[in-house]
Amino acid sequence: MLKVAIYGASGYTGQELLRLLLRHPETEVTALTSRRYSGIPVAEVYPLFVGLTDLVYADASPKDVAGLAEVVFLALPHGISMKVAPAFLTEGKKVIDLSADFRLRDVGTYEKWYEKHVVPDIVKSSVYGLPELYRDSIAAATLVANPGCYPTGAILGLAPLLKAHLIDDTSIIVDAKSGVSGAGREPQVGTLFCEVDEGFKAYKVGQHRHTPEMEQELSVLAGHEIRVSFTPHLLPLSRGILSTIYATLQSDVTAAELTDTFRVFYKNCPFVRIYREGTFPNISSVRGSNYCDIGLTVDRRTKRVIIVSAIDNLIKGASGQAIQNMNLMCGLDENTGLDMVALFP
Amino acid sequence: MLKVAIYGASGYTGQELLRLLLRHPETEVTALTSRRYSGIPVAEVYPLFVGLTDLVYADASPKDVAGLAEVVFLALPHGISMKVAPAFLTEGKKVIDLSADFRLRDVGTYEKWYEKHVVPDIVKSSVYGLPELYRDSIAAATLVANPGCYPTGAILGLAPLLKAHLIDDTSIIVDAKSGVSGAGREPQVGTLFCEVDEGFKAYKVGQHRHTPEMEQELSVLAGHEIRVSFTPHLLPLSRGILSTIYATLQSDVTAAELTDTFRVFYKNCPFVRIYREGTFPNISSVRGSNYCDIGLTVDRRTKRVIIVSAIDNLIKGASGQAIQNMNLMCGLDENTGLDMVALFP
Amino acid sequence: MLKVAIYGASGYTGQELLRLLLRHPETEVTALTSRRYSGIPVAEVYPLFVGLTDLVYADASPKDVAGLAEVVFLALPHGISMKVAPAFLTEGKKVIDLSADFRLRDVGTYEKWYEKHVVPDIVKSSVYGLPELYRDSIAAATLVANPGCYPTGAILGLAPLLKAHLIDDTSIIVDAKSGVSGAGREPQVGTLFCEVDEGFKAYKVGQHRHTPEMEQELSVLAGHEIRVSFTPHLLPLSRGILSTIYATLQSDVTAAELTDTFRVFYKNCPFVRIYREGTFPNISSVRGSNYCDIGLTVDRRTKRVIIVSAIDNLIKGASGQAIQNMNLMCGLDENTGLDMVALFP
Amino acid sequence: MLKVAIYGASGYTGQELLRLLLRHPETEVTALTSRRYSGIPVAEVYPLFVGLTDLVYADASPKDVAGLAEVVFLALPHGISMKVAPAFLTEGKKVIDLSADFRLRDVGTYEKWYEKHVVPDIVKSSVYGLPELYRDSIAAATLVANPGCYPTGAILGLAPLLKAHLIDDTSIIVDAKSGVSGAGREPQVGTLFCEVDEGFKAYKVGQHRHTPEMEQELSVLAGHEIRVSFTPHLLPLSRGILSTIYATLQSDVTAAELTDTFRVFYKNCPFVRIYREGTFPNISSVRGSNYCDIGLTVDRRTKRVIIVSAIDNLIKGASGQAIQNMNLMCGLDENTGLDMVALFP
Repeated sequence: MLKVAIYGASGYTGQELLRLLLRHPETEVTALTSRRYSGIPVAEVYPLFVGLTDLVYADASPKDVAGLAEVVFLALPHGISMKVAPAFLTEGKKVIDLSADFRLRDVGTYEKWYEKHVVPDIVKSSVYGLPELYRDSIAAATLVANPGCYPTGAILGLAPLLKAHLIDDTSIIVDAKSGVSGAGREPQVGTLFCEVDEGFKAYKVGQHRHTPEMEQELSVLAGHEIRVSFTPHLLPLSRGILSTIYATLQSDVTAAELTDTFRVFYKNCPFVRIYREGTFPNISSVRGSNYCDIGLTVDRRTKRVIIVSAIDNLIKGASGQAIQNMNLMCGLDENTGLDMVALFP
Repeated sequence: MLKVAIYGASGYTGQELLRLLLRHPETEVTALTSRRYSGIPVAEVYPLFVGLTDLVYADASPKDVAGLAEVVFLALPHGISMKVAPAFLTEGKKVIDLSADFRLRDVGTYEKWYEKHVVPDIVKSSVYGLPELYRDSIAAATLVANPGCYPTGAILGLAPLLKAHLIDDTSIIVDAKSGVSGAGREPQVGTLFCEVDEGFKAYKVGQHRHTPEMEQELSVLAGHEIRVSFTPHLLPLSRGILSTIYATLQSDVTAAELTDTFRVFYKNCPFVRIYREGTFPNISSVRGSNYCDIGLTVDRRTKRVIIVSAIDNLIKGASGQAIQNMNLMCGLDENTGLDMVALFP
Repeated sequence: MLKVAIYGASGYTGQELLRLLLRHPETEVTALTSRRYSGIPVAEVYPLFVGLTDLVYADASPKDVAGLAEVVFLALPHGISMKVAPAFLTEGKKVIDLSADFRLRDVGTYEKWYEKHVVPDIVKSSVYGLPELYRDSIAAATLVANPGCYPTGAILGLAPLLKAHLIDDTSIIVDAKSGVSGAGREPQVGTLFCEVDEGFKAYKVGQHRHTPEMEQELSVLAGHEIRVSFTPHLLPLSRGILSTIYATLQSDVTAAELTDTFRVFYKNCPFVRIYREGTFPNISSVRGSNYCDIGLTVDRRTKRVIIVSAIDNLIKGASGQAIQNMNLMCGLDENTGLDMVALFP
Repeated sequence: MLKVAIYGASGYTGQELLRLLLRHPETEVTALTSRRYSGIPVAEVYPLFVGLTDLVYADASPKDVAGLAEVVFLALPHGISMKVAPAFLTEGKKVIDLSADFRLRDVGTYEKWYEKHVVPDIVKSSVYGLPELYRDSIAAATLVANPGCYPTGAILGLAPLLKAHLIDDTSIIVDAKSGVSGAGREPQVGTLFCEVDEGFKAYKVGQHRHTPEMEQELSVLAGHEIRVSFTPHLLPLSRGILSTIYATLQSDVTAAELTDTFRVFYKNCPFVRIYREGTFPNISSVRGSNYCDIGLTVDRRTKRVIIVSAIDNLIKGASGQAIQNMNLMCGLDENTGLDMVALFP
């Protein structure tokens, strides 16, 4: 059994990691840390765990935790992860960081959108943890930067088109809609039930920090620098991101041909499901699963391709993908412990 | 008191008309028709009306109803309205049709997207009932085609830009998200609670019938033919449409300047509220009201303007706008009976 | 125009008071206070007010506010109201307190369930603001203690039965379910969207502070001391309380007879609607209105009467009832400004 | 691998059976029947199954299906199950019926609450499939009547108290609240999103068909006939039932003692979780799992015990319990394939 720890396990992604790891056949969770809940059983904070685990949150140092686990998930806010990661790496542990701290290869870009980076040298050694693009590098990595939730949906929805140079790179618009769990469990007015319920809004229009992350990976795929318009919205539901993506086609191509392109591109990817052309995913078909579902069509009248991708932001957009990365890093089958079928209705 | 009738009053728009008209200081509702609920008090079908009205649904002919009212709202499915409207017009009644039957000036376009039109001659005499664009014509009209819910939000969000030729007309994308009440009250699997709850999806991508209606009005504003990409989505909430609209700017203009353009354009429009640049409306700020709230920003990196408009689809997107039209047609103040403040939370 | 102020106007009940008062034909809101939002326009905190009012929150003393208004609503947490109320009373203002501070006639009971009372002498002069029971006293009062949301639904559902001695007083069970707005707008984990959405729970079982308030009024009605079992639950919706009330009947009486008893009891009460026997209200039929809807049946097999009452907790359960009290205190018609029809769907 | 069929697999319980069986390590689903969807892949009706199964709905006779499976789940409406079951039993198949047709031991009671029974003789041979009460009989049965969703929550919440004669049997009140999936997938106005959303109501007060089923089992536990007041309510959420149960205590006993009684009673039951006294379950802690969570307290002021039980109505209240029964009937470990952790948030 692989011993794993979750460093910063009090939020929704930490909880989700634990939920999945408890049913993972090859892992044993040996430590959960939290400053706020130190000394409190996780089953008191999250009663879904009653009777399933006796784990208690500890306010433990990285050094202490390193002694208990071979793999460490960092489910910390950005800015904190980069302070904690080096201690684990020094001890020879495999680290999967769910924050943004090691995702942007260009430290200047990180510092522009986030804050001063304290360990810029380590950034170089990290691998962007999107298995569909970087499977082999991830398998060889000791530090994986787990992708943001919005970039996961957007990049998977665009990769085959960019790789094949089928679209006008200046025409990309990502109109994405996320459930509330993406905002975390820290109490704030904006995520209170009454503020979100029966409402819907765009937020951080043209300013969301996931923009440079998307652009970094889309640029790699295209082979040159790309800018996108990205508008996140807040849905009155708990889990899921649906991204509606628009781009102008370079040539006359049918939806059926594009669908084939997607099928070929993702043929070895167990968690990407391509829909029949003209049919589109619903968040409720992926909720609770590690799938990214993708459907597309061609609007002949405007020569645009419209792609819709759907993920569960806490699973494929965070904790499930982190476990997928762990599996690859540890030589396990990529989908070990991730065979959940979506919960519907 | 103005005597008004609702022909086809069993659905949500009929119910909403009644709800608003009961509190309108200048109207008396004299007839509600419904084949299905004939003989049943409206307060049994919609218990919110208990104690407020004794009206009973009748299965009455247009002729019978014409004898009871000066103004008739048709809250019927498309295809039925055009069969019923002539009888009222012949009797000299003012008619406000909430269906699509008289919205498209080009009968060929109607027949392509809907069905054979039975009274094409009458189409010419109808006025498109968007008061912000056609106030004077509405005041003089006897037949008003009340706009579709999606077109209302999209047109109001684009009109000032098109009129001033500020955007590239080929670049328009309308990504719209609607609450479930837009689908009506007819039982079907797709609008069951369990199918919609905690889900989100795009539907009729590139094929929604509101597309030609938007394009008709946007083309009038631009002075030449326009095509848009329009993607409707289904939100897990009951009321409201939020439209996120993208267009490429023709020149270097700031969000503040564009906001001013909107303010000037709508300065005499009591139901359009323009937000400070960089701030955006939430559906929950218009729910229950007749307002269309609009916010915008300029994404300098991609030279796009991003406009967000929000309406309550049953009010500004249907029944409220119909009453606004009635007010104009009958010489009443435009906002009589429409001073509702949004219900929040 | 009656000048009114809202002292402590940043929460949901303060917002709701403003929303209703802006459309009240006889009032002008002259001051809104808030320490947190001092200097900020209310339309920035609650965008539904954009374009409707220029009011700005002020951090003003009671003395300052007293100079601006004849009637003052206190929408403050319990414990604060009792410190603020005397200043307004001294200045001869009419005060309607939405907190619990003046509801319990027995100061000892207040101190047992809440905290030390700082102005016990003033408690005696306050009137419990349930117009259906105390209309005349309210009209003569200068200090009205606006009832709690749960007690409003429970007392109105039981009053006719207790007054007529139809039920076994030891058998009363109130199983109540409330929307989340009852918990206020203060950020806390328990009222985050993700914690409430798709969930349902009982809370403070047998310990909720509204218990002694219910018991006080039910005891007055019965003519002797009564104890009830009261279990509040949290519904995944924003507004509304539905109370399912059980009691054992003293004698053989039909649902039709009991319904008549209710109709007679509330015949002069414009905001209580009694349903036909065997039919029951839904929260969605009162949401947005000041109504309390009541339905009942008799379970012959167990000799119990089952009563269901529904209110909008922010309106009849708080701000609407407060305005109803203001109307009575100021000699206005009881339902002035309160003719809202429920918003459905 | 155990070959299993789902007869009548188009509704939510059929879908849920398939969802769970696809991940059950010892079963292979060999047939799904549906008249309406005959010839259509299940993955088209329920897209969550895209890529997971090629099963196609068939309109097959019991005889045809019997040839394909050793165990058959009947997920049919009551009245249909009893017509279909005999064919499977004759062929020596094990049958688990999710309808009400074989739950009531007294055929007269069945016929009073439902309809004429066509195979009354078979009723005697059926076992009521609540493993916590009838584990051994289920293991030996060929026909199991899977319990109703409401009775599951109510019986598990009362069994230890009745068995130990701790409560007054005439005082039992079950106030239960269910998610909408319990109403099935047949389109009807009452379960449309807009009718349920932001609403809450009681329904079939004193008349719900699950009443005699509860009373049958509670009477067995008590050793004499029991009547209960049972009020079902409809929650605006998809999955889950929370039952708040009231009963008067016979003697002076503490919540801690009662909690112990529950712990002992259920000590060999892997799917019943007893909470610490004074703490109560939330539907969201069991959603997606096969658990029944129970918490209780004693209200000393009224001498009542208040028990709250929570289940996922589609799992422990239907399909999960059916698989639990299958496991027992087939000699598998009771919790095989049922180790799901609740999905939260």
